[in-house]
Amino acid sequence: MNAEIIAVGSELLLGQIANTNAKFISTQLSELGINVFYHTVVGDNADRLKSAIEIAESRADLIIFSGGLGPTKDDLTKETIAGHLGLPLVFDEMALSFIEQFFAARGRGMTENNRKQALILQGSEVLANHHGMAPGMLLEKNGLTYILLPGPPKELEPMFQFEAKPKLAALLNVGRVIQSHVLRFYGIGEAELEVRIQNILDNQTNPTVAPLASDGEVTLRITAGAQNVEEAWKLIKEKEEEILAIVGEYHYGYNDDSLASKLVEMLMHNNLTISAAESLTAGLFQSELAEVPGVGASLVGGVITYTPEAKMNQLGIEKSLLDNFGIVSSECAGAMARKVREKFGTDIGVGLTGAAGPDPHDGQAPGTIWIGFSIGDSDYTHKLQLQGMRNTNRIRSVKFACSYLLRLLVEKGYRKI
Amino acid sequence: MNAEIIAVGSELLLGQIANTNAKFISTQLSELGINVFYHTVVGDNADRLKSAIEIAESRADLIIFSGGLGPTKDDLTKETIAGHLGLPLVFDEMALSFIEQFFAARGRGMTENNRKQALILQGSEVLANHHGMAPGMLLEKNGLTYILLPGPPKELEPMFQFEAKPKLAALLNVGRVIQSHVLRFYGIGEAELEVRIQNILDNQTNPTVAPLASDGEVTLRITAGAQNVEEAWKLIKEKEEEILAIVGEYHYGYNDDSLASKLVEMLMHNNLTISAAESLTAGLFQSELAEVPGVGASLVGGVITYTPEAKMNQLGIEKSLLDNFGIVSSECAGAMARKVREKFGTDIGVGLTGAAGPDPHDGQAPGTIWIGFSIGDSDYTHKLQLQGMRNTNRIRSVKFACSYLLRLLVEKGYRKI
Repeated sequence: MNAEIIAVGSELLLGQIANTNAKFISTQLSELGINVFYHTVVGDNADRLKSAIEIAESRADLIIFSGGLGPTKDDLTKETIAGHLGLPLVFDEMALSFIEQFFAARGRGMTENNRKQALILQGSEVLANHHGMAPGMLLEKNGLTYILLPGPPKELEPMFQFEAKPKLAALLNVGRVIQSHVLRFYGIGEAELEVRIQNILDNQTNPTVAPLASDGEVTLRITAGAQNVEEAWKLIKEKEEEILAIVGEYHYGYNDDSLASKLVEMLMHNNLTISAAESLTAGLFQSELAEVPGVGASLVGGVITYTPEAKMNQLGIEKSLLDNFGIVSSECAGAMARKVREKFGTDIGVGLTGAAGPDPHDGQAPGTIWIGFSIGDSDYTHKLQLQGMRNTNRIRSVKFACSYLLRLLVEKGYRKI
Repeated sequence: MNAEIIAVGSELLLGQIANTNAKFISTQLSELGINVFYHTVVGDNADRLKSAIEIAESRADLIIFSGGLGPTKDDLTKETIAGHLGLPLVFDEMALSFIEQFFAARGRGMTENNRKQALILQGSEVLANHHGMAPGMLLEKNGLTYILLPGPPKELEPMFQFEAKPKLAALLNVGRVIQSHVLRFYGIGEAELEVRIQNILDNQTNPTVAPLASDGEVTLRITAGAQNVEEAWKLIKEKEEEILAIVGEYHYGYNDDSLASKLVEMLMHNNLTISAAESLTAGLFQSELAEVPGVGASLVGGVITYTPEAKMNQLGIEKSLLDNFGIVSSECAGAMARKVREKFGTDIGVGLTGAAGPDPHDGQAPGTIWIGFSIGDSDYTHKLQLQGMRNTNRIRSVKFACSYLLRLLVEKGYRKI
C-alpha cells in the first residue's frame, strides 16, 4: 500500500503555517509500513483540489486529506470529493446531535453553517472527533482508500492515532511490523560519515539506513520490517552494532536525545557536580544543561565573564595571563575552568572563551574558540576553528563542550547509563 | 506568475522534519505578489521526482525546488532536472574553489563526492551560498523559470531572500510593488490585540493587516501594493500610526527585532552597563543579550546561582532572607539584582528566580517566577505566573525580563533609538 497526503488550505500556500499534519501522518504511516510517495498542498479552491485528487488517484492506493471539513464556505474538501466520486453527502445523526449538544452546553445558538459539519460522504465510516466538531471519514471506493481528517492538529492527531490507524492496520492485515531507531552522532560531517559507512549504505535492504544532517549533528535512521516487533528490533540492533564498530567514537545517543541531556544524565548518574565560566557563550552552556528537570543535583552554577575585567575581578585570573597569552587562549580557557571549579567547589569546572564573530576578538579570527575542563588536578583544553555566523558558533561551541566532556568522562572511567 | 514549490527529500516523507522551507518560500513569494497554487513533496527517487516536475510544468510558470543539492548519492535534484531538460551539468569554477577553500581552512581533505556540489545546470545563473557549500541556481527555459535551492533552512533562507528574490522581482517587472512591514508586540495576547484593533482588521483593503502569534509574541504584518516603493511605504506608515495609537504600549520593534536585541540597542545607546544573577534561566538571559555583536560594551557578566548555596556563597544573600521569604520571592529576586549589580559594578542588575517546572520549587507552583531589577538606589520586582512547560517558562521569563526593563528605562527617561 502506498499513500499520498493532500493538505487543503490557503493558509499553507500563503506560508502562515507549516504542513505539520503531513509530518505527523507520515510518521504514523511509516510505523504501519505504508510508503508515502508524495505530499501535496492545495488551496481552498475546488478545481485545483479536484485536479490534485485525480493525480493522487493515479499514483496512490491510499489518499489522506487534512483540512477543509469546517463550517465556513472556504471548507470544501468533502463537497469536492463527493462531486468527484458522484457520492451524495448525508447527515450523520450522531455527529449532528454532538454538535447540537456542544452549542447547548455553551448556551449559544447553533448557526446554520455548523450543521454542515455533520454531513458525511455516503458509505463512509465515521472517525470520531473528541476534540472538535467535524467528524473524520474513511471510505473505500474503486479499490482506493480515502481518509478525511480535520485540519487543526489537536483534532487530527488523536483522530488519526486512535480512529484511523487501527482501521488502516486492519485493512492491511499483513502481519508485518515496521520499527525504526535513530542513532545520533556529533563531531563528524555527513559526507565523511557516509564515506566511512559506504558499504553499509550501498548494500542496505532490510533494515534500511538513512543519514540526515541538522544543526551540526548527523543522524542515521535504521528502519526494519519483520513478522513481529522482536524480530524487527533484532535486525535493528545487528545493524547498529555494525555501524558503531566503524563510527562509534562519534555516537552519543538515540532518537530525541541531545548532547546536553546526555551530559546531564551522565553527571547525575555519577553524582558529579559542575560549574562553568562562560565568555562568548554567555550562559548558553549552563542554560542548555538547565533544560533538564532536576539538574540542580549537578549544576551548582557559574559565572559569566564577558569582559576582561570580569575575568580578572570575578574569577581572579591574573592580568599577566591575559596579557601574555590573550583572552582567546588555551591558558585562559584552562584558568577559567579551574578558577570556577574552585570558587563553586564542584567536581568539574568548564571554561569557554573565544571570538564568536563577526569581528576578530583580542587578535583572534572569528570562530576561534577554546574550551577548558578542570577535573581534580587535571586541566584539559580544546581548540575549535568554526566558520559559522556568530550564533551558530556560540551554539556549536556548547555542543562541542558537551561532546568533549562526555568523551573525557568515559575515558576517565565514569559510567554511561 | 504562479508558482509551485517542490521539496525533495525522503526525510520529509518519513515525517522526520516538516516542510518549513515551503512555508518560508511561500511567505516570500506572497510579498512579491506571486500566487502559490501547490506545494509538492517527493522523495529521493529520480522517477517520482521527474513525474512531479512534469506535473508542475503543466500548471505553474515558476517551479522552486528545495533540497537534493548535497554531496551524497541521495542528492539527485539537479541531476534529474538536467536529464529531464536535456541540459548538461558543468563545473562552476567559483563554487569549486569555494568548496576547496572550505576544506583547506579546516585542514581536512576534500572527498570526491564534495566536488559534485560545484556542478550546475548549463545556462543557469548561480545563487551564491554564504552558509554552506552547494550553490543554488536560477534557470529560464521554455518560458518557465526553475529555481534550485539547498535543503538546510539556514542556507536556503538567506539564499532565497538575498539572491533569488531580487532576481524574481526583476523578472516580474510589473510596475507594481508590494512592500510589507512587521510590527512586533509583547505582553498582549493575540485575541485581545485583535479585539482592540477590530475596526482596522474589518475594514482592511490596501494595506492589509495580518496578525500572527508565535512564541508568546504577537506580530502584525502590514502589506501594501502601490506604483512605487515610496507610495507603498506611505500607506504602510499611515496604517502603522493608526494601529500604534490603539496598542502602542505593547509595541517593541519591527521585522526581525527581538526583545533582547532592542534592549541591547537601548543599553548601548545610553552607555548603560548591565549584569545579571540567574537561577531558573541559568544564563539564558545573558546568552540572549550576547547574540548581539558588540554587546561587551554593556554586558559585563553575571552569575548563575542555581542552588541555594550558590545564592548565599557567590552573591552573599543571607540565609535568613531565603528562610523567611523563600527562594522564589520578590525579596530574593530583588536581592539577586542588587547584589550582582554591586559585585560587577554595573548600572543595572537583573535577578531571575522561579519554579520552571515540572515540579514545585521551594513550595511554589511551577510557573511562579520573580524578576528583579536594581538601578541606582531603586529596586523593582515583578511576579509572573506562567502555565507553560519547563522550557517555555524559562524562555518567556527572559522575554518578560527584557520587556519590563525596556519599559522601565523609558519611564526613567532613557531614550529609545
